[in-house]
Amino acid sequence: MPCKILTDMVTLGAKNVSIALVHHPVVNKVGEIIGSAVTNLDLHDIARVARTYGVGQYYLTTPYEDQQKLIGEIIAHWQTGHGGTYNPARKEALSIVSMAGSIDAVIETIEQQHGRKPTVIATSAKVSENTLAYDKVREKLGLNEPILLLFGTAHGLAPEVMNRVDFVLPPIDGGTDYNHLPVRAAVAIIMDRLLGWE
Amino acid sequence: MPCKILTDMVTLGAKNVSIALVHHPVVNKVGEIIGSAVTNLDLHDIARVARTYGVGQYYLTTPYEDQQKLIGEIIAHWQTGHGGTYNPARKEALSIVSMAGSIDAVIETIEQQHGRKPTVIATSAKVSENTLAYDKVREKLGLNEPILLLFGTAHGLAPEVMNRVDFVLPPIDGGTDYNHLPVRAAVAIIMDRLLGWE
Repeated sequence: MPCKILTDMVTLGAKNVSIALVHHPVVNKVGEIIGSAVTNLDLHDIARVARTYGVGQYYLTTPYEDQQKLIGEIIAHWQTGHGGTYNPARKEALSIVSMAGSIDAVIETIEQQHGRKPTVIATSAKVSENTLAYDKVREKLGLNEPILLLFGTAHGLAPEVMNRVDFVLPPIDGGTDYNHLPVRAAVAIIMDRLLGWE
Repeated sequence: MPCKILTDMVTLGAKNVSIALVHHPVVNKVGEIIGSAVTNLDLHDIARVARTYGVGQYYLTTPYEDQQKLIGEIIAHWQTGHGGTYNPARKEALSIVSMAGSIDAVIETIEQQHGRKPTVIATSAKVSENTLAYDKVREKLGLNEPILLLFGTAHGLAPEVMNRVDFVLPPIDGGTDYNHLPVRAAVAIIMDRLLGWE
């Protein structure tokens, strides 16, 4: 069990963590590069999880204008429309959601806000060469430096993304050979491993 | 980091764990007892998470016949219909899903299969008197005794359920005052805390 000082440091560090849910470039089940569709569900579930763990910003990244329009309409409904009055908790969760056209755009936004580029850490269901253990990332959270966690939709982040990130988190090990977690569940588990307390 | 022997014991113990997603009796946001609607989403997401962590059985409990019919149709589509051919991984996840009319019916089924009543452990976003820490539940997993974990839909399990369970898991602490996780996310996080390995 980690000590209380580290607890406070991690809690403090959560606001320096950003999440990006990547809809392009990702791969389909035969490994082709595709762009996936934004879902209302991923938007809501991941926003609620990110807000629970004190994450600073949750970016939905998609290059498609019609998908960006959809995201904008959902956010507006909950931020300034009827949704926010009906369910203030949902309004609060969605207040950390932003839209970006690409991973580069997310990195640029973070650099403008924090004065330096974020350490970019990918998540994957496969083992990578540049793996960084969960406790090492946890240690980084106390350092007051921006961290961007990338989550892939569809069948995961494209190789061109994996090849340029600083680190990759280890796959989630459930003790079985079944390896098909929903990305929403992966985000919840990884947030808890990095920012949660028992 | 727990030792390898304990790892194997917990992995072995996962098949003795059952999950029930309770749709009645639960409470609404003003605390009234209600029955909630079954969602396709909870069925799929929780089945995939449960299968990832080697959970023995996932019960959707609802007393409503129309909802039971819906569950039966979804399971059939993925077990014997087109779904299973199209996506065998989903078929495998849904193979652990069952339907039950009530929590009592789930307990009775487990008792018939294991020869003894399960230890029933509720989950809640609030602190309870009979809290059992995650590491204590983890220890129980090696004992080869059936455990039933109850998750509430809507705004959580009704007091009449909370009052009769053996233990309650601590609320998930994300280091903030925001307390509105989707039940799907709560299941993922709790499975990882009880059955996951870094």
